[in-house]
Amino acid sequence: MSSVKLGLIGAGRIGKIHAENLVRRIPGADLRIICDSRLESAQDLANSLGVSQSTQDPRDLLKNSELDGIVICSSTETHAELIEESALARKHIFCEKPIDLDVSRVRRILDTVAKSGVKFQLGFNRRFDPTFKSVREAVKAGKIGTPQVVKITSRDPQPPSLEYSKGSGGIFMDMMIHDFDMARFLVQEEVIEVYAAGSTLIQPEISQWGDFDTAVVTLRYTSGAFCTIDCSRKAVYGYDQRLEVFGSGGCVSAPNEFPERIVIMNEKGVQQALPHHFFLERYKDAYVDELTEFVQCLNQPEKQPSVSGLDGLNSLLIALAAQKSAVEKRPVTLEEVSRKS
Amino acid sequence: MSSVKLGLIGAGRIGKIHAENLVRRIPGADLRIICDSRLESAQDLANSLGVSQSTQDPRDLLKNSELDGIVICSSTETHAELIEESALARKHIFCEKPIDLDVSRVRRILDTVAKSGVKFQLGFNRRFDPTFKSVREAVKAGKIGTPQVVKITSRDPQPPSLEYSKGSGGIFMDMMIHDFDMARFLVQEEVIEVYAAGSTLIQPEISQWGDFDTAVVTLRYTSGAFCTIDCSRKAVYGYDQRLEVFGSGGCVSAPNEFPERIVIMNEKGVQQALPHHFFLERYKDAYVDELTEFVQCLNQPEKQPSVSGLDGLNSLLIALAAQKSAVEKRPVTLEEVSRKS
Amino acid sequence: MSSVKLGLIGAGRIGKIHAENLVRRIPGADLRIICDSRLESAQDLANSLGVSQSTQDPRDLLKNSELDGIVICSSTETHAELIEESALARKHIFCEKPIDLDVSRVRRILDTVAKSGVKFQLGFNRRFDPTFKSVREAVKAGKIGTPQVVKITSRDPQPPSLEYSKGSGGIFMDMMIHDFDMARFLVQEEVIEVYAAGSTLIQPEISQWGDFDTAVVTLRYTSGAFCTIDCSRKAVYGYDQRLEVFGSGGCVSAPNEFPERIVIMNEKGVQQALPHHFFLERYKDAYVDELTEFVQCLNQPEKQPSVSGLDGLNSLLIALAAQKSAVEKRPVTLEEVSRKS
Amino acid sequence: MSSVKLGLIGAGRIGKIHAENLVRRIPGADLRIICDSRLESAQDLANSLGVSQSTQDPRDLLKNSELDGIVICSSTETHAELIEESALARKHIFCEKPIDLDVSRVRRILDTVAKSGVKFQLGFNRRFDPTFKSVREAVKAGKIGTPQVVKITSRDPQPPSLEYSKGSGGIFMDMMIHDFDMARFLVQEEVIEVYAAGSTLIQPEISQWGDFDTAVVTLRYTSGAFCTIDCSRKAVYGYDQRLEVFGSGGCVSAPNEFPERIVIMNEKGVQQALPHHFFLERYKDAYVDELTEFVQCLNQPEKQPSVSGLDGLNSLLIALAAQKSAVEKRPVTLEEVSRKS
Repeated sequence: MSSVKLGLIGAGRIGKIHAENLVRRIPGADLRIICDSRLESAQDLANSLGVSQSTQDPRDLLKNSELDGIVICSSTETHAELIEESALARKHIFCEKPIDLDVSRVRRILDTVAKSGVKFQLGFNRRFDPTFKSVREAVKAGKIGTPQVVKITSRDPQPPSLEYSKGSGGIFMDMMIHDFDMARFLVQEEVIEVYAAGSTLIQPEISQWGDFDTAVVTLRYTSGAFCTIDCSRKAVYGYDQRLEVFGSGGCVSAPNEFPERIVIMNEKGVQQALPHHFFLERYKDAYVDELTEFVQCLNQPEKQPSVSGLDGLNSLLIALAAQKSAVEKRPVTLEEVSRKS
Repeated sequence: MSSVKLGLIGAGRIGKIHAENLVRRIPGADLRIICDSRLESAQDLANSLGVSQSTQDPRDLLKNSELDGIVICSSTETHAELIEESALARKHIFCEKPIDLDVSRVRRILDTVAKSGVKFQLGFNRRFDPTFKSVREAVKAGKIGTPQVVKITSRDPQPPSLEYSKGSGGIFMDMMIHDFDMARFLVQEEVIEVYAAGSTLIQPEISQWGDFDTAVVTLRYTSGAFCTIDCSRKAVYGYDQRLEVFGSGGCVSAPNEFPERIVIMNEKGVQQALPHHFFLERYKDAYVDELTEFVQCLNQPEKQPSVSGLDGLNSLLIALAAQKSAVEKRPVTLEEVSRKS
Repeated sequence: MSSVKLGLIGAGRIGKIHAENLVRRIPGADLRIICDSRLESAQDLANSLGVSQSTQDPRDLLKNSELDGIVICSSTETHAELIEESALARKHIFCEKPIDLDVSRVRRILDTVAKSGVKFQLGFNRRFDPTFKSVREAVKAGKIGTPQVVKITSRDPQPPSLEYSKGSGGIFMDMMIHDFDMARFLVQEEVIEVYAAGSTLIQPEISQWGDFDTAVVTLRYTSGAFCTIDCSRKAVYGYDQRLEVFGSGGCVSAPNEFPERIVIMNEKGVQQALPHHFFLERYKDAYVDELTEFVQCLNQPEKQPSVSGLDGLNSLLIALAAQKSAVEKRPVTLEEVSRKS
Repeated sequence: MSSVKLGLIGAGRIGKIHAENLVRRIPGADLRIICDSRLESAQDLANSLGVSQSTQDPRDLLKNSELDGIVICSSTETHAELIEESALARKHIFCEKPIDLDVSRVRRILDTVAKSGVKFQLGFNRRFDPTFKSVREAVKAGKIGTPQVVKITSRDPQPPSLEYSKGSGGIFMDMMIHDFDMARFLVQEEVIEVYAAGSTLIQPEISQWGDFDTAVVTLRYTSGAFCTIDCSRKAVYGYDQRLEVFGSGGCVSAPNEFPERIVIMNEKGVQQALPHHFFLERYKDAYVDELTEFVQCLNQPEKQPSVSGLDGLNSLLIALAAQKSAVEKRPVTLEEVSRKS
């Protein structure tokens, strides 16, 4: 396997994880240059990992003829432009979700990507979680028959800052979009209708800009099967990420993952440690595995990323329908939001 | 404790269970007479339990001055009249759910009961399930803070016959009414809005009369908290009855109950036995406990049954709202169905 | 099924349980008379259960021609004589363990019983525990291949009084004899050698009379398979009764039984309730099932009790070998103790 | 932190793991040279990891003034000499267990190491297993009071080849030595007496040279507490590595570790995947953590390895006592084997 040469844009929290994985854990990856709008961040990360170049100008990556691909980890509002320019520069693209919050813009970008012929992978990391992958494989292998009800529980250990929340696009777009993608991934069926109900039980302030911190969503698939998702911005006991698929032949479920499993019994009761604290711990392996796939795709001409731009578009449409549903207090079809956009 | 003298109406499946529990397992209960519209059924049950009298005429119980209370286990359409007549005859009443499927009639009956001064207990047996009671106690004791999301999974091992389904009032009225009561029981808050979505994925025939075999319901409580319930008429692995209450301070959950817990590990994997097959096994203790409470209420003037007629009315309203929601494909408020009735 | 007429001797703790089970829970049993050396105890128990007769003289039972069988629940030192006299009086016998602590006397008694032709069942209740029975059935069904290692954990929630301990025969005879029987039951193989090591880590006083409160025993079966048993008089978290059988084809294990299974997750961790507190809770069903079998044996001429006097003898021999081993600090063969006795 | 320069001897199975961990996963480690008696093996491993030098002569490492430490992964019979020469060459030493099978030789070597002043760490990797470390920490933190009974289950998925077995030193020396070390690690008490019983239930051939494939061992600690270990060369369901520590204040237990935790329920039962297959999967993290500690010790003058040569000696003495006990069929004190050696 020859080595794949990459540049990475965005040296923030997730950028650091991807950079470290590329350097230390992913065979065949050769991270050549790190870019961040704050040059110092780029330099610090590059130095700590032994990456030779750093810059604050993304164009230094795009015009670098050596690079095979770009890993985009910068902030959401920069994604669209960077994807477009990378595609035009014939660089393969790995981009953190979401592509953009505007559906028509997402469509244009995906069009550009398609015409360019570059490979495009979206960072829905949970699809690479070993546990959830096993669930998907059990479903695919027919172990639970025809899927009828998917259930997803998605709770963060603490809410983001109000400042972050305000610009996040709201709970459906920012947080549940992962769950919407998971809903599609697990059963490989399209969602046709969404009902969402939301409340602000944790941070009442966010209701000012129409956001929720607690939400319950019902998705209807084309077959008549359902998915229910319950979501909270704050579970005091840690990151609660469970799911199950129930079908005509059985039920497969994924419990939470725990950093340790020892059991203590004493006069007070039977005690175990809490689940993983948050996504960095829970999805540690998934972050490695998703970029491993991207690197493999760049090495194998016929191999396409398993998470496409269309997956990003479809999850976005579900999130928009959920937002509309929660505000208008009625079920909303995907067709309705798709048509309007 | 003096002994409470009782008559029982309806020697069918549930009547047999109650009769046997009264005779064998409930201290202070004295079952004197069993009534069934088929005299032979009444006689057989009385004989097998050593109950001295049997009859096919409910009036033999109502005018029997010895009896303190009546246990009504006959078919749904007879409940209303029997409750009314028992109340007028000054007999305390234990009645299987539902009181009636007609809201205004239920209201009239509860009125009659209230005026008569007799005690009235409705057979929402699941409230007496030791596991679910522990969940309720944990919530009450503040162990999970303020409730925010209740989740209930309710799946039967196999669907009823088409004939039964046709006259059952539908999945919301016949099956999920237990879950609606559980939703109210666990957090002791009223439901104000219902969204229900249904499909027929198991028995397509039942869609002829507007019924569903798979349903997902979202309830909104007054506080803004939610309950999601997913319901199926057929889980091939047995009776799936799980629930959890998530709150500002934690989460309490009740897993399925199993008839045995041994674990076998061999080349094929790690294997355990299935959960209890159905409600008779799962709620065996609950059936004893609910009638034990009824007998205690009859022995203690100040003690009132913990499941009242109002609980029956409120669950009925939620079921009606769910039915309306599933048909009209929109959320329906309780006020709306309550006003109309 | 005709009714089996029984008398019960010994209205203490275990006698009360058996009496109540016979009256309330065991079909076909007709408890006619209760005997206790303290007449008041016999009368109180008889009254509370509606049993018509009581006495303080066992001969009232033995010469009562109506009675089919005797249930012996009196103190250990009375067992031998009562068994013998019951056999001579042609009454079938259910007797709490042990038969006697003297091997040659046990042999004589079993001889008398054999000659009399009456049925004899020993109260090794754990064989009727539904969980352990399932383990035995899995072994019997070949699910784990040929047994190689049996492991038994046996811990009481608190030690008995010093007074009781002193007269109990010691930890091997009083407590572990149940485990020794279980070791034989699970794999249906005879034990040929015993190594026992004991310490007094809980009640140092008991070392005065050569007893231990913590013991670890290794049994060797004829096939070369082993059983290890660890035993403690005090587990602060309750009654710890687990076992497993490992074999050439897998492993079957029985975890502890819990009165409830709800799980609470909050900032402190994941918490569950403790196992059952002690044997009355843990083996509640087993007590019913063992006497149910006894009653069935009395009703069916060809049916023999599954726990015989020989089972009592063999467990006693293992206990004696264990005691000898712990004192002499060497492995002791069953042959050695058997020959001497 | 400056970088620690290391040479590694032995490019076999465990050598490859350590080499890869040093290069890829352990910060501050700089693996400079790989040695193997088969030069090609050394070269291949060096090439695959980008290590610059390889050799078949250990002296190339010992006389290399750049190197701070030597990691010894060659076969058991070479350990003693390599340790001695490394110590004389003033190289810090990490060595796979065992030091040697001859007690007096081990003593001499440890003496040489002590005089040289170099740091010495023995490869008892299980002490670094995150789960077992948590158990140790719970014990240390007093969560279960004073330890009274330690239980260790240790079963391999398949027996080694007969050829390997023949030269392995036997089940106590080759396999259970890890468990003996664990017994000492968990409660930090010395073992004073050993009783071992063994059978050949899997590979009868090995009894020719006095080996066993199934063994049960009882250890007595100075305090009177016990440890029981059951060991098998073949568990068809995978690597079975469980342990618990029971004490005056409770019990802490470590269940098996599983590669995945999804649960499938269907008509056949409740199913989960098997535990990790063998030690490479189960102790993957432990291998990283033990060498991480070694590297830290070389960087911090005052830091000593947590697993010393004395730990190796003491486990060896327990293994020798076990072997003697199993052959002579009696408990053997550590003093006895220690004195003789």
